[in-house]
Amino acid sequence: MINPNKNAAILLIHCPDKPGIVVTITEFIHKNGGNIVYLDQHVDSEQGVFFMRIEWDLEKFVIQREKIAEYFETLVASRYQMIFQLHFSETKQRMALFVSKMSHCFYDLLARYECGELNVEIPVIISNHRNLQKAAQRLDIDFHCLSITKETKKQQEEKQKELLLQHNIDFIVLARYMQVLSDNFVKHYPQKIINIHHSFLPAFPGGRPYHSAYQRGVKIIGATSHYVTAELDAGPIIEQDVVHVSHKDSVEDMVRIGRDLEKIVLARAVRHHVHHDLLVYENRTVVFE
Amino acid sequence: MINPNKNAAILLIHCPDKPGIVVTITEFIHKNGGNIVYLDQHVDSEQGVFFMRIEWDLEKFVIQREKIAEYFETLVASRYQMIFQLHFSETKQRMALFVSKMSHCFYDLLARYECGELNVEIPVIISNHRNLQKAAQRLDIDFHCLSITKETKKQQEEKQKELLLQHNIDFIVLARYMQVLSDNFVKHYPQKIINIHHSFLPAFPGGRPYHSAYQRGVKIIGATSHYVTAELDAGPIIEQDVVHVSHKDSVEDMVRIGRDLEKIVLARAVRHHVHHDLLVYENRTVVFE
Amino acid sequence: MINPNKNAAILLIHCPDKPGIVVTITEFIHKNGGNIVYLDQHVDSEQGVFFMRIEWDLEKFVIQREKIAEYFETLVASRYQMIFQLHFSETKQRMALFVSKMSHCFYDLLARYECGELNVEIPVIISNHRNLQKAAQRLDIDFHCLSITKETKKQQEEKQKELLLQHNIDFIVLARYMQVLSDNFVKHYPQKIINIHHSFLPAFPGGRPYHSAYQRGVKIIGATSHYVTAELDAGPIIEQDVVHVSHKDSVEDMVRIGRDLEKIVLARAVRHHVHHDLLVYENRTVVFE
Amino acid sequence: MINPNKNAAILLIHCPDKPGIVVTITEFIHKNGGNIVYLDQHVDSEQGVFFMRIEWDLEKFVIQREKIAEYFETLVASRYQMIFQLHFSETKQRMALFVSKMSHCFYDLLARYECGELNVEIPVIISNHRNLQKAAQRLDIDFHCLSITKETKKQQEEKQKELLLQHNIDFIVLARYMQVLSDNFVKHYPQKIINIHHSFLPAFPGGRPYHSAYQRGVKIIGATSHYVTAELDAGPIIEQDVVHVSHKDSVEDMVRIGRDLEKIVLARAVRHHVHHDLLVYENRTVVFE
Repeated sequence: MINPNKNAAILLIHCPDKPGIVVTITEFIHKNGGNIVYLDQHVDSEQGVFFMRIEWDLEKFVIQREKIAEYFETLVASRYQMIFQLHFSETKQRMALFVSKMSHCFYDLLARYECGELNVEIPVIISNHRNLQKAAQRLDIDFHCLSITKETKKQQEEKQKELLLQHNIDFIVLARYMQVLSDNFVKHYPQKIINIHHSFLPAFPGGRPYHSAYQRGVKIIGATSHYVTAELDAGPIIEQDVVHVSHKDSVEDMVRIGRDLEKIVLARAVRHHVHHDLLVYENRTVVFE
Repeated sequence: MINPNKNAAILLIHCPDKPGIVVTITEFIHKNGGNIVYLDQHVDSEQGVFFMRIEWDLEKFVIQREKIAEYFETLVASRYQMIFQLHFSETKQRMALFVSKMSHCFYDLLARYECGELNVEIPVIISNHRNLQKAAQRLDIDFHCLSITKETKKQQEEKQKELLLQHNIDFIVLARYMQVLSDNFVKHYPQKIINIHHSFLPAFPGGRPYHSAYQRGVKIIGATSHYVTAELDAGPIIEQDVVHVSHKDSVEDMVRIGRDLEKIVLARAVRHHVHHDLLVYENRTVVFE
Repeated sequence: MINPNKNAAILLIHCPDKPGIVVTITEFIHKNGGNIVYLDQHVDSEQGVFFMRIEWDLEKFVIQREKIAEYFETLVASRYQMIFQLHFSETKQRMALFVSKMSHCFYDLLARYECGELNVEIPVIISNHRNLQKAAQRLDIDFHCLSITKETKKQQEEKQKELLLQHNIDFIVLARYMQVLSDNFVKHYPQKIINIHHSFLPAFPGGRPYHSAYQRGVKIIGATSHYVTAELDAGPIIEQDVVHVSHKDSVEDMVRIGRDLEKIVLARAVRHHVHHDLLVYENRTVVFE
Repeated sequence: MINPNKNAAILLIHCPDKPGIVVTITEFIHKNGGNIVYLDQHVDSEQGVFFMRIEWDLEKFVIQREKIAEYFETLVASRYQMIFQLHFSETKQRMALFVSKMSHCFYDLLARYECGELNVEIPVIISNHRNLQKAAQRLDIDFHCLSITKETKKQQEEKQKELLLQHNIDFIVLARYMQVLSDNFVKHYPQKIINIHHSFLPAFPGGRPYHSAYQRGVKIIGATSHYVTAELDAGPIIEQDVVHVSHKDSVEDMVRIGRDLEKIVLARAVRHHVHHDLLVYENRTVVFE
């Protein structure tokens, strides 16, 4: 993978598949002085859709940063009905962490943050409980406790949105945040909210998946990170992983074993999002690795 | 694991958990000249159930083979309300193979059979198609083609039962047999029919699980072997395994990749069954390894 | 697995295999009022060695805690030339953490410690660098920086031993501590020092294993936790795990990907040690799960 | 992945990394009427080497098949010091199978062959034993038994070479062939001999790796497929996989468990080779997936 700290531009593209797309895009970059450092493409031949992630060094690129999107739209994208996103590797994204009482994903992400592995800014942590407040404050991160009841949910979500706006947040990570976000909230952050669900989706959506897994007598448990959409636990899957269990493992054992899965699966998903490695198309992800 | 060819007795036991069970059982074996070569136990502390698999060398055991069950029932089992099965490692079980058109599990099991890995007799193969007839006959195994339609199902199942009776079959392996067995048929062979389902159950039960997996955009596909019960794909799970896939994998790729999973997961389940490694309790398996 | 907080005794035993061992041990426990809550045994039939882990509830056990070892030695162990360890689940072990600059295992273990998953006391952290001092102090754990050079090593190890004595340490975890301990130091703590090595041992022992893995072009990297012995990276292996890599992964990618392996493999090994799940016999471990 | 049966050309390329390579190659294809159906590239930034696999539909390509290599060399490759291979997806490769006594990889490959999964011709099987002769003949494949001793090796290898020539063989698969090929033989088939080694290389090269694995007390065993080079078990690795074992597994258990690994790892490697998915560079493989 590419060093994310270089001065590079990243394009994520999808469009109807046609001959000539790769030539057109690579010419646009090359002829204008860009040096391609990463290129991966995928053709969904059933649906006839072309996907690409391309990254190039901006050092000698003749088009100004602010103008790249416009030029690309005019000269390339419009000809192929492309939907594209343009990102710059230098830009540090601002991430909000939503937590409840469970600490494993929270600590894991913060440990990565502190040692510099997670290339983001985390200016704010929002929780519906106070349990992790002290730990957040140790790292000098703003912590807001907004407890949620049926009655207060709407109002508290408004406060959450204000905080996110105020801190100029780019995306949200639900690190075992034990509240279902309202449709209205979710709509404000399309493909900007990453959740970790403690099962191998689509098995065991909703609450208490380890209890259900135990009940069904499965021999493997899993964790799934996905973008949050209006339908519960049904958003596009970013990462999944599993671990073997046996009849010896009680529900409590599964909860404990699952924690290690959850934290790693969530961290990988966050990494993909931060590195602009992924595209969503019809509720499925294309993850360039 | 224990050499399955020795002259050994195997007890599979479950009963309400109480103090003294292990002592009582091991005393019964030891005091009567049996040398314990394997012992594993499990206590489900939530339900208060004790499970055990114990295996002992019969060489110097003073109770005759035919009397062991009776003595054990009288002296031990009745005192603890035990449900037990008694098996002898020398007894070669007789297995029937049910297949349709797909050959991967069929060839894999037969290769294991031919090289002596699978410690069974396979006197008969039953199929609803002729595709694998030639391959079966190469190995001098009786092959019966019983094609199934809605109308003929009942009658053909009667013929299947006759064949199974005639060949003195102990258990049935559905090696991608693409017919749903009737409740009536299933009832005749409780915990005697092993199926391989090409998904990570309980995700994607029923038909076309790879299509559903593709549609949902999962990053992992699986295979599940289970005992067949009246409810489709809901019987006790014996073995599961999974493999990572990506957006690059089409449904056809999943089908191909899945074949390797299916054959290995099925073979492991058959091995557990043949070695009397497993117990079923309330639709979940206890697999002693 | 068994709840570690109950008032239970745990015996880890090995001895030459003979008939009657299980009966004798279970009788000793049962007849004296102990309720067996866990029993697992293993016979190495090649070497003729019997291994066992047995755990029983002490509530109604008639032999006093302080006398159990003596009684067991006299009545059971001596007759079978048993080597045994007796532990009590209530006893919280005292663990020292040795670290250098890398923080991932350190943070991971402390997160488990803080949320109560790791059932130990960590009174002291020893490092040859100051990098993690602040983080240690946030959690009010004694932190000692003892920098090591060829010249100072002997003397600093003496200081380490004093600190361990002073804090009444039961075992040591080297959480990516980048110093080779002297034979003399190691001899003081047999099967009491757990290391994490960042390769799939015995491949790539010694320094820079990720560089060697990259150089060799392996498709899988691993991590190994083991007890430290006089020979470098050759002690008994407790846990190993691996992850797939590809030609796309640079050495730096392997280092990053490996961190998640290392922290989980080390945590599992520490858990086994803390729960008295394992025995060492001729440089190999028997891990009861 | 791409349907291998289409009328497509495949280029595998490596060269010093420079700006403009992708544009030049894709232009060459596109401007001459080729429709790119697969493109993957990799830059080894440490060594400054560019790698690519590109596949395009030949239907409307204006350069004749026989001329493509010449045109590509003249117009593209020579300008960038490219080393390239050109393949056509239609061409069915001819594979020779070398076996000894063990049947698992043999049966597995033949089952894939028979059901059409393995897109090759297998005209000849060579063995140093007669054990698998009957099975080979059932499938109407030429079987030659050439037993090997120190004295006869040179002479028998000459006969092997004649057979390979006679059958117009493209590549050789050693399906647990238990003879070390001479340097002289190996030199004739660079990157044309695929071996399966029953360990996680570089751990346990040479003979009896499961015995060594058992002795060392590893918790994971593996299998490695690689191209054969002059140095034993040191050729470029194509595929590796592993499986967990425990103290309960004897050497014989490892041998049995390992068989399933070996057959799948070997089959994956053969598939990559057949699909022209891989490049070798400085004893490491780049595997495009």
